[in-house]
Amino acid sequence: MAGPVTTEAEAELRAALPGSAFRDLEPRYLEEGRGLWHGTGGLLIAPRTAEELSAAMRIAARHRISVIPYGGGTGTVGGQIGHGLDRPLIVSLERMTRIRAVHPEANVLIAEGGAILADVHRAADAAGRLFPLSLGSEGSARIGGLLGTNAGGTNVLRYGNARELTLGVEAVMADGSILRGLKRLRKDNSGYDLRGLLVGSEGTLGIITAAALRLFPIPAETGAAMLVVRSPKAALALLGLARERLGEQVSGFELMERTGLRFLKEALPNLRAPFEELPEWSVLVDIGLAEGQDAKEALSGLYEAAVAEDLVTDGVIAGSEAQRQAFWDYREAMPLANRHVGAICSQDISVPLERLPDFIEAGRAAVAEIGPFRINCFGHVGDGNLHFNVFAPEGESRDAYRANGTDRRLIAAIHDVVHEMEGSISAEHGVGRLKVGDLERYQDPVKLAAMRAIKRALDPSGILNPGAVLRAD
Amino acid sequence: MAGPVTTEAEAELRAALPGSAFRDLEPRYLEEGRGLWHGTGGLLIAPRTAEELSAAMRIAARHRISVIPYGGGTGTVGGQIGHGLDRPLIVSLERMTRIRAVHPEANVLIAEGGAILADVHRAADAAGRLFPLSLGSEGSARIGGLLGTNAGGTNVLRYGNARELTLGVEAVMADGSILRGLKRLRKDNSGYDLRGLLVGSEGTLGIITAAALRLFPIPAETGAAMLVVRSPKAALALLGLARERLGEQVSGFELMERTGLRFLKEALPNLRAPFEELPEWSVLVDIGLAEGQDAKEALSGLYEAAVAEDLVTDGVIAGSEAQRQAFWDYREAMPLANRHVGAICSQDISVPLERLPDFIEAGRAAVAEIGPFRINCFGHVGDGNLHFNVFAPEGESRDAYRANGTDRRLIAAIHDVVHEMEGSISAEHGVGRLKVGDLERYQDPVKLAAMRAIKRALDPSGILNPGAVLRAD
Repeated sequence: MAGPVTTEAEAELRAALPGSAFRDLEPRYLEEGRGLWHGTGGLLIAPRTAEELSAAMRIAARHRISVIPYGGGTGTVGGQIGHGLDRPLIVSLERMTRIRAVHPEANVLIAEGGAILADVHRAADAAGRLFPLSLGSEGSARIGGLLGTNAGGTNVLRYGNARELTLGVEAVMADGSILRGLKRLRKDNSGYDLRGLLVGSEGTLGIITAAALRLFPIPAETGAAMLVVRSPKAALALLGLARERLGEQVSGFELMERTGLRFLKEALPNLRAPFEELPEWSVLVDIGLAEGQDAKEALSGLYEAAVAEDLVTDGVIAGSEAQRQAFWDYREAMPLANRHVGAICSQDISVPLERLPDFIEAGRAAVAEIGPFRINCFGHVGDGNLHFNVFAPEGESRDAYRANGTDRRLIAAIHDVVHEMEGSISAEHGVGRLKVGDLERYQDPVKLAAMRAIKRALDPSGILNPGAVLRAD
Repeated sequence: MAGPVTTEAEAELRAALPGSAFRDLEPRYLEEGRGLWHGTGGLLIAPRTAEELSAAMRIAARHRISVIPYGGGTGTVGGQIGHGLDRPLIVSLERMTRIRAVHPEANVLIAEGGAILADVHRAADAAGRLFPLSLGSEGSARIGGLLGTNAGGTNVLRYGNARELTLGVEAVMADGSILRGLKRLRKDNSGYDLRGLLVGSEGTLGIITAAALRLFPIPAETGAAMLVVRSPKAALALLGLARERLGEQVSGFELMERTGLRFLKEALPNLRAPFEELPEWSVLVDIGLAEGQDAKEALSGLYEAAVAEDLVTDGVIAGSEAQRQAFWDYREAMPLANRHVGAICSQDISVPLERLPDFIEAGRAAVAEIGPFRINCFGHVGDGNLHFNVFAPEGESRDAYRANGTDRRLIAAIHDVVHEMEGSISAEHGVGRLKVGDLERYQDPVKLAAMRAIKRALDPSGILNPGAVLRAD
């Protein structure tokens, strides 16, 4: 079992790294947004290079020190907090922020693990390309953490998640060796897919210090519409219709329900709602077209076809890029509105796409059996990925429900439904420390055994992010 | 070290499996297309289910028997032949051929490991969807082998390789346990990416018995053009132009050179060439558009723009689907023409896209230093993936060059150039038995060490496809 940074180990670290690599352990490194996980201390280093981190990891390996990789701190499952660990070594990527290279002809960008997503977006844009990974925390989330958690977001439908956007990684392994895997090739079958394994391993198999990321052409024409749909089932049929008409040019397809829109109104009264009367179910459809196509025309055509099939009853098509952005701001403000109200529990689940309407119904029924709670279910319905959040009844506080364990009952009830429908209890946020038990309960035992064997093989002393994803030995 | 099927083990296998699972070991199971690898015997089983295979693997694990997974037998790197192994257990997937389910709404199809690619295409098409994995051997290649080698082909540019087309796998592991990983979710972050690890592991970590595969909308409009380009550099610029104008709707982008076209004429005199006079460099551009776009118009526009930029000097746009197919038949016949002439050696390499013209030049120079050989370099230039094949000078036979080791010198010279350009010595065919030494020479040692650790972790007795990808212990 991994242990603390001892006085002796600290002396070795201070001798091996430049003084500038040591930073004050500000409280933010020990806390996370949901307030569920807390660190109690540790030694913070912010290496400048993979080589510096390698030197530190060799010392950590020799002394069997717990190592917590820290990116932008935006994770929602506690993966970045050494909860319950005695004085871990916290490795912040904040000083490895360079964009090492942009190759627009080859559609590749090389970013260091500490590069902030918004900066990667800007660098791609400056080269006339798109890096499509897109999520609410893009102003602070860092590439190392985004890849570590295989981040999803709003463009997965079209472009894939972080893993699919990564061609290669440079990473420091548990023994301090540096994996030089920054191949920027679309096709490379020279051995096992370590890139895919490290992406999504949440810092438990290695620390990603740089990545070769895929870029895309910037769509010539973009457009968006907010459409009122009859039901989640109608939303799915609308997605089918959109893809039939526009192929893979549908970039985003987000579902919202009235409860969420009410929360938005309450939390952000100045935010302009697309519809006067808040609709029970609505979707944000985002498209990006090639040259010579007209986005407004394409969306009007879709709208008319959807009305003809009685899927859609009302809609607004963005008249400008500013209005498209306003639609997205509205959608992206949802987590903020949820935090304003204060969820008893939040789920990040996915189910096979065609079962999504059934899941919403069954999930609501499962919650209703426990109590008259409010539900805000929203998200990336195009990927079968919903955030299914449960709130106390109007006027009540969530605290009592958390204190008496109702939160855990709600989570179990919802996850049981997900499992029964062959879904995932972690669609895009990862396992972290929050869902270790859920993983043990719901994941295929053969997969779990293989995961444990791989963890032991690549990190035999269990020093990398102990307690995340898998229970520490 | 893994050993033979002993009399005792065979008796156990015959007791555990139905008689129909045992098949005659016809010569085809011991040979492969290039004649480089030969098996000498073995016990052949063709299980009907993952459960039958699981029972067999448990016995193989107990007796430490070498196991050779066998799909369609179309692999080009010897991964399917137990060369040098004493009486291995050969596991053919040929009786697990079912399409278990098609979910057009969710764009997913579940196929067993023995399903033939062309049958998967047909099943997808019948449901109004596209399964885009496309390669010459689609009439005999099986899903288990295609995934095992992370097959590429002609549509990777747009749709990705086999790994990116796979949402989940069912696989029998070395100890006989069955990984139930047929999740058909676009987003699933519940643990390490075993799917990605098994795909491309060439049967050395597990045997894929079924897979959840991604389907796509069938493009409303398809089109193709054969364009004469000034140079490989002009071909790349043309690709950039095509993607600027058509975004991700460029499905295929294949480069050919005059030597190859001559081989085609020689081998298949009745095959109609698109150009009277064989051009030095030409590309096949294939596009698939959404509703409301016109493919011929899009290709004419591209042609005119490319002529204006002096990239292209001549071209033919397919006037019909039949002509588009004829273009592809012409391109797909290239391996046949190469076999007709008989290459001294063939390479399956990739380099960073923008270095591709440099690679062609440097590769030619490296070959010229060894002798006045003919080169046919062609392939999926949109992916940076070229097949770079070397032939004896006109009128000479390749045999002498193979007998005196010139083939190995050529391979080393070309692979050295690839390595220097940060490319891959195996872009899409895999490592198999052919490139084990190359992998040891060129692959990052940290990656190799991690691969060996993973192999030991998941297959501690080394029974799965011993000697493929990694040297057997």
